[in-house]
Amino acid sequence: MITVEWVDGKVRFLDQTLLPFEERYCETDDARVVGDAIRVLQIRGAPAIGVAAAFGVLLAFSPHSPLHLAELKSRALTVIDLLGRTRPTAVNLFAALNRMNVVLETSGAGDGKVLWEDLHREAQAIYQEDVEACRRIGEHGAALLTPCSSVLTHCNAGALATAGQGTALGVITTAARQGKIVRVFVDETRPLLQGARLTSWELLRAGIRVVLITDSTAATVMQRGEIQAVIVGADRIASNGDVANKIGTYPLAVLAHRHHIPFYVAAPLSTLDMETPTGGSIVIEERDPTEVTHCGGRRIAAQGVEVFAPAFDVTPNDLVTAIVTNAGVAYPPYDRSLRLIATQR
Amino acid sequence: MITVEWVDGKVRFLDQTLLPFEERYCETDDARVVGDAIRVLQIRGAPAIGVAAAFGVLLAFSPHSPLHLAELKSRALTVIDLLGRTRPTAVNLFAALNRMNVVLETSGAGDGKVLWEDLHREAQAIYQEDVEACRRIGEHGAALLTPCSSVLTHCNAGALATAGQGTALGVITTAARQGKIVRVFVDETRPLLQGARLTSWELLRAGIRVVLITDSTAATVMQRGEIQAVIVGADRIASNGDVANKIGTYPLAVLAHRHHIPFYVAAPLSTLDMETPTGGSIVIEERDPTEVTHCGGRRIAAQGVEVFAPAFDVTPNDLVTAIVTNAGVAYPPYDRSLRLIATQR
Repeated sequence: MITVEWVDGKVRFLDQTLLPFEERYCETDDARVVGDAIRVLQIRGAPAIGVAAAFGVLLAFSPHSPLHLAELKSRALTVIDLLGRTRPTAVNLFAALNRMNVVLETSGAGDGKVLWEDLHREAQAIYQEDVEACRRIGEHGAALLTPCSSVLTHCNAGALATAGQGTALGVITTAARQGKIVRVFVDETRPLLQGARLTSWELLRAGIRVVLITDSTAATVMQRGEIQAVIVGADRIASNGDVANKIGTYPLAVLAHRHHIPFYVAAPLSTLDMETPTGGSIVIEERDPTEVTHCGGRRIAAQGVEVFAPAFDVTPNDLVTAIVTNAGVAYPPYDRSLRLIATQR
Repeated sequence: MITVEWVDGKVRFLDQTLLPFEERYCETDDARVVGDAIRVLQIRGAPAIGVAAAFGVLLAFSPHSPLHLAELKSRALTVIDLLGRTRPTAVNLFAALNRMNVVLETSGAGDGKVLWEDLHREAQAIYQEDVEACRRIGEHGAALLTPCSSVLTHCNAGALATAGQGTALGVITTAARQGKIVRVFVDETRPLLQGARLTSWELLRAGIRVVLITDSTAATVMQRGEIQAVIVGADRIASNGDVANKIGTYPLAVLAHRHHIPFYVAAPLSTLDMETPTGGSIVIEERDPTEVTHCGGRRIAAQGVEVFAPAFDVTPNDLVTAIVTNAGVAYPPYDRSLRLIATQR
C-alpha cells in the first residue's frame, strides 16, 4: 500500500478521510492541494506529512520552466512557507521543509533544471529514508516484545502515517511476522477515529487479530491483565524525551504506569526535535469544534455547547519506558540517550 | 423535566435515545415496553431504571382486574422476572424489584385492588425517596466543593438518570446555585455519548457553562491544572467501596489520583450493594458491538473488526476520595463507613 509518492511530475496520495470504506488515490500538480490535503488529514501521520511536504515543494516549478533562477527559488520558498502553515505540531513537516530549504539555499545549480533535480533528489531521499527508518524501527521494537504478546495501540502510526511500514505498527507487524503477537487492542481514537478507521483496516489486511475498543475501555483491558505492552507513534519528541502524540496518548501512559505495563514510543529520528527542550514548548494544534460535536457526518452533541479540541497531548518522559528509533532504542535518562542517538542523524 | 413517572395508569418516560435533538415522551401500559425501554437505554441511569421498573410492576395487572389474588401475584412475579433480565449491572433495578416483591409477598391484601394499591404505594415511595435522595446528595456534595471550581463529569448522572435532580449533576447544580461552579468539563462518553447528548443538554438548560471534550482529552485538562474535582455517579457500589460506573470512569479515577484531584462518587443508598463484597463480584454488562463500530447511525470502523464493549468498569476503592450519599459522605476505609451508612436505609 502506497500512502504518498511522486509519480510523473505529480504528488499521488491515498485520501485517508475516505478509509476504510473507499480506497481513492488523488493526484495533483498543485502544491496548494497538497497543503489542503495535510490540513484536512487526507494525508496524515507525522512522517507521511514530512514526505508529502517534500514532494509538495517539487510542485513549485517545472524542471523545464523558462524562468530565472531567482524567480524559481522564490516560488519554492513560497511553497515551503505555505506548507509550513498547514499543521503546527508534527516536527517532521518542518524537518523535511528545512531540508528542502537547505538544498534551495546551497544548491550550486546554474539553471532551473539542475536546481529542480537537486530538490527532487532530496525529496526522494526523505522518502527512502523514511521507508528504511520504519524497517529498522520495526526490528528494534519487535526485539523488545515478549512472545505471546497482546499489545495496545492508539491512533494510527502505520503504513498510512509513513512512507514505509509504519512506526508503532511497523513494530507490531514485524513482531507478528516473528510469531510474537496474539492480538492488538486498538483504541478507536476520537474524534477522527484513526484507530477504528485506519489502524483496524491496516492490521486486518496484514492478517493480524484486532480488537477494537473505545478509548476509555483501554483501562479495563489493562486492569484485566490482557496487555503486555503499549506502543504508540509520536508527532514530536522533545530533547528531554517528552512526547507529543495524538490526544489520548498521555492517559494511556498514566494507565500503563499504574498497571506496570511497558509504554513504548516508536518514531524515526526525523521526529526528534533537539531544539525543543521539553514538551511544554511544543505548540499543540487545536482542531475545529465540529470534529467533536459531530461523528460520521452527523451532529451528536447538544446545540450551543463549547468545545476544547486539542489534537495532541504531551506525555512526560517519566512515563515512557523506551523510545524506539531507527538508530536504536533510547532509555531514560532521555536528555542523554536522545542526544547520543541524534548524532547518528 | 420529568424523566419517568406514573400517569393515569401508565408509565410515561422521556425517550433519551432521541435527545438532545427531540424531546419525545412515551406512554405505555405494557410492562414489556418498559423492559425494552430500559434495555435500549430510552430509560437509563441506575436510579431512573429502578423507578421505572417499580412502575413497570404496576402494569402487571389492573386494580380493577376480576382475577384471583394468586393469578394477580403470579402476573406480577412474571413482570418482576422480565424486568430483572433487562440490564445486569445497576443494582437499583434489583433493589426496586426486590422491594416490590416484598410487598407482593407480605401484603395482607384480601383482593386485587388492595394489593395493587399496596404496590402502587411502594412504587411511588421509591420514586419520592429518589427525589429526596438526590436533593440530599446535592447538599452533601456541594459542601465538598471549593469556590470557583471547575469540575469534570462523565456520562450522565443527572435528572435524566434519576427521578430527581440527579446524583453527580445534583451536586454540580446545587453547587452552581451556591455560586461555586465556574464551568463543567463533560466527557462525551463513547460509545453512546451520554455526555455529549444528555449531560451537556441538561447543564446548558440549567444555565451552567459546559466544555465538551472527547474522553481522552480529560487527562490534558487535568494536566493543565484546570480541574478542581471529578464527580461521577455509580451503577453499583460494593460494600468495600469499589464502584461500578460507566466505562471510562476508572481511567478518570487513575488520572485524578496522578494529578492530586479529588475523585467523588455520588449515589443514593439504593446504589449500595452490601451483598457484594468487592467490585470483582459485579457482573459487567457487555453491549452490542455495533455501538462501537457505528456512531450517529453510521458505520465508522473497518469491516470485520472484533469489538470488546463493556458498558461499565470498576474503580477500586483506593482511588475514591469520598462517596456522597443521601445519608451523608462516606470516607475510606469504606468497608466501615459504608456499613455505618447502610444502616440508615
